Amino acid sequence: MADDALFEFLHMEMVAHVYKEQAARTEMEQERSTCVSILEGMGFRVGQGLIERITKDTPSFKDDLDVMKFICKDFWINIFRKQIDNLRTNHQGTYVLQDNKFALLTQFSNGKQYMEEAPKYLAFSCGLVRGALSNLGLDSVVTAEVSNMPSCKFQVVIQKT
Amino acid sequence: MADDALFEFLHMEMVAHVYKEQAARTEMEQERSTCVSILEGMGFRVGQGLIERITKDTPSFKDDLDVMKFICKDFWINIFRKQIDNLRTNHQGTYVLQDNKFALLTQFSNGKQYMEEAPKYLAFSCGLVRGALSNLGLDSVVTAEVSNMPSCKFQVVIQKT
Repeated sequence: MADDALFEFLHMEMVAHVYKEQAARTEMEQERSTCVSILEGMGFRVGQGLIERITKDTPSFKDDLDVMKFICKDFWINIFRKQIDNLRTNHQGTYVLQDNKFALLTQFSNGKQYMEEAPKYLAFSCGLVRGALSNLGLDSVVTAEVSNMPSCKFQVVIQKT
Repeated sequence: MADDALFEFLHMEMVAHVYKEQAARTEMEQERSTCVSILEGMGFRVGQGLIERITKDTPSFKDDLDVMKFICKDFWINIFRKQIDNLRTNHQGTYVLQDNKFALLTQFSNGKQYMEEAPKYLAFSCGLVRGALSNLGLDSVVTAEVSNMPSCKFQVVIQKT
């Protein structure tokens, strides 16, 4: 569908732009802000805004797992048009969300040759999740890993306060 | 709808980022690439990609006016969820597309106080139109003006070769 394409193309441009501008910087400046953290920050703010709209008519959540299920289903469908395929947890605040066909990686051939490129295209989405959780009252650390394109695992570690 | 929100929030972040990074640059660098042209360029490439998908099953166009009507209707709906409200032409290659409630301006209050800010939020969309037309074989110059938020006029001048 073309409306997904709008987001995907714009995301692509944003990644390309952030990396291009970084290449033009001096080394000292580069240390201050890495591309991944810039993209993650953008995702964070977009995630905060989106979750507010999506949860507008949602009753409150009973626990962290309930929040994570919402992220895997409603939040994910809203952004990526599919839900997370598998959610696992150790029941101690760590959650692994697996998407077997992650929208932002489907344009890559599924061999190993673009594996190095993957983190660039995951930073924004890690931020999305962290931003959404943050607005639901959960501080978290979100990382992503790819072992086989276009499948992708997001690890969420809830920070206890 | 929240899926529009995704694009709108991401667009907002992108504009903010491009302007922030520009502020950190030296004067000489600033001359090379203005924010408006960076955003316009991003829009151009996104427009090129989108039009290719949207026109996949469309029969070919009979003339420039036919192309412009497609931009006002299918292309606009696809991106902004509504069509252009008014299309005017002098039949000599100049078209004025008026959107009475332009999606990327609806967040502004409709007084005069944010008028200066408007061009930042229009550059990407000017690029979208120019990119789409370019892929349909028409070179153009696209500008936008706002006289009353959130209404907006895009002027397209087709370049004869």
